[in-house]
Amino acid sequence: MKVAQPIEWTAKGVVMLDQRRLPGEVIRHTYVDYRDVAGAIKDMVIRGAPAIGVAAAMGVALGVEHSSAGSLEELRAEFPAICLTIARTRPTAVDLFWAVERMTRRFEQLSSGNSPLDAVRRAMVEEACAIHAEKRATDEAMGRFGAELMPAAGKVMTQCNAGALATAGIGSALGVIRVAVEQGHDLHVLVPETRPYLQGARLTAWELHEGGIPLTLITDNMVGHFMKSGSVDAVVVGADRIAANGDTANKIGTYQIAVLAHEHGVPFYVAAPVSTFDLTISSGEQIPIEERAAEEVTHFRGVRIAPDVTAANPAFDVTPARLISGIICERGVARAPYAESLRRLADSDVAVPQA
Amino acid sequence: MKVAQPIEWTAKGVVMLDQRRLPGEVIRHTYVDYRDVAGAIKDMVIRGAPAIGVAAAMGVALGVEHSSAGSLEELRAEFPAICLTIARTRPTAVDLFWAVERMTRRFEQLSSGNSPLDAVRRAMVEEACAIHAEKRATDEAMGRFGAELMPAAGKVMTQCNAGALATAGIGSALGVIRVAVEQGHDLHVLVPETRPYLQGARLTAWELHEGGIPLTLITDNMVGHFMKSGSVDAVVVGADRIAANGDTANKIGTYQIAVLAHEHGVPFYVAAPVSTFDLTISSGEQIPIEERAAEEVTHFRGVRIAPDVTAANPAFDVTPARLISGIICERGVARAPYAESLRRLADSDVAVPQA
Repeated sequence: MKVAQPIEWTAKGVVMLDQRRLPGEVIRHTYVDYRDVAGAIKDMVIRGAPAIGVAAAMGVALGVEHSSAGSLEELRAEFPAICLTIARTRPTAVDLFWAVERMTRRFEQLSSGNSPLDAVRRAMVEEACAIHAEKRATDEAMGRFGAELMPAAGKVMTQCNAGALATAGIGSALGVIRVAVEQGHDLHVLVPETRPYLQGARLTAWELHEGGIPLTLITDNMVGHFMKSGSVDAVVVGADRIAANGDTANKIGTYQIAVLAHEHGVPFYVAAPVSTFDLTISSGEQIPIEERAAEEVTHFRGVRIAPDVTAANPAFDVTPARLISGIICERGVARAPYAESLRRLADSDVAVPQA
Repeated sequence: MKVAQPIEWTAKGVVMLDQRRLPGEVIRHTYVDYRDVAGAIKDMVIRGAPAIGVAAAMGVALGVEHSSAGSLEELRAEFPAICLTIARTRPTAVDLFWAVERMTRRFEQLSSGNSPLDAVRRAMVEEACAIHAEKRATDEAMGRFGAELMPAAGKVMTQCNAGALATAGIGSALGVIRVAVEQGHDLHVLVPETRPYLQGARLTAWELHEGGIPLTLITDNMVGHFMKSGSVDAVVVGADRIAANGDTANKIGTYQIAVLAHEHGVPFYVAAPVSTFDLTISSGEQIPIEERAAEEVTHFRGVRIAPDVTAANPAFDVTPARLISGIICERGVARAPYAESLRRLADSDVAVPQA
């Protein structure tokens, strides 16, 4: 199945799909300068925390590969500036800092010995590609566990974009759908457009369409109507943060989809890697909700669509654990009571099988 | 309180607010030719079934008033063409045909006698203005009954535009809110934008803002989040058609708002005139749901916002009576069991007091 990759390491450089232009234009940029990778992260050519992590690792690797340093000594002097440039792009994506730190640790390991300069360069590129491969393996393991929960034939609803474009793998929620379809499940996806940013309409619809998976785009206020008419057999969404009790923060609108699924007896699943679990907080009440600019609601591509009034724009909401049928991660499926099952999966040292 | 009137009879002609340009531009057109009124109805300068009815009546009156007929005989020969032009504008709005028929009956009554030509002209204008006054009186009676159900202070959510712009009075759902505010209730209105046509963002937000009633615009997927955070004390919406058992068809999204209100213990009211009751159908299952063009979802002002995929666009949904706390009409408030209460109100011959 065709999976639209947001980022790839190639012989010519780091190739990125410009997500700002989707679905109108499919444009790929090739970067050979790490500063351009930093710019691409900053300008949101690429988005989605796991995908940003991969971009950061590749940016550092690119900086090392194309450095004009003639000795390990010179490269060592240059390295902090490369990392700083990559790290100073987006303020909140945890994966970004995690990836820069991991690349830094690897560089220290390599440069503390007497490896030849070329070997260090090659090994750093390999590390970035390993991070990418791990993200893919995580998605694929999630996909396999999740696929078992999908109906043999039927309609599945998702929300926002928890796809390949966001993870640089096969996606979390969309990865579950992809694997199920590859295994022969006959699925049709209902895609809410996800206002105000339209990630559903712009990205998920595009990704599924490219992958040849049948879909129907709907507006966010049609969810209940389609559940009532029996057109939804399961819901699977991603997550931004999962509390110790299973309460899940995800894109605004997820909570009401969960309430509607519960009302109509439709199973509601969350698909998210273990890195999303935040077991330091006991419940979703401790998750802060980012309030974004009102202009995202009152304007559309710079054109005013509402009068000059107050608009609310919470970017996320919290779905209480009681509405969640299961939380799919790369190590298995957590079920209620989540306080126990999430802890067990987080502590398990099951290695994720490489694809 | 300032009520933005979609249509008014003035000494200079019929003045209409161009709703297609709201909220960006507030433009009023003055029509002296009935053919221009027909064009305005057709081109949706004015929309909303009751408002279209008023426009049709005024269009017929305008045709009679400005006719070049020198005798009652000549006017009588011209009259059918005037009515036909007005009637051939929109295919489904019941109020349109009802208004043309009522104006025709009045004309026959007047022209069968030997009234002077000028007296007939004046009487026809008076009839159109009477229809307008009746619509206003209906809204105001609904408003008074509904206001009693509004909290003394709190947040009220609505959906779409059930306002003055749609009824040519003070609105049905928005009329309830207006009267409550005039009576001293301290209300703040939560306005879902109502995709795909954005009647909430474009029309309701504008109407409330003009009327000085505080509001917050939200996207349709924020409804559950705000109910969960305790920011909604009551919901009041309009209706397109109400079945004998109380099941109510209204703008898409109404059903899921009702489910969410029920889940959060928030009272959910429908405000609609008796003319909306359809006691010939036993339940909402018999109400056909209009499916509109997919382009309304995939495009925004002519610009594609989604790839070339299938999109669903049901314009309405049906809210089952069990989720409705009360149905407010100009004769009182119907409560469950609706089969009895709606019949009682429909049969009652209580005259609506003129404002």
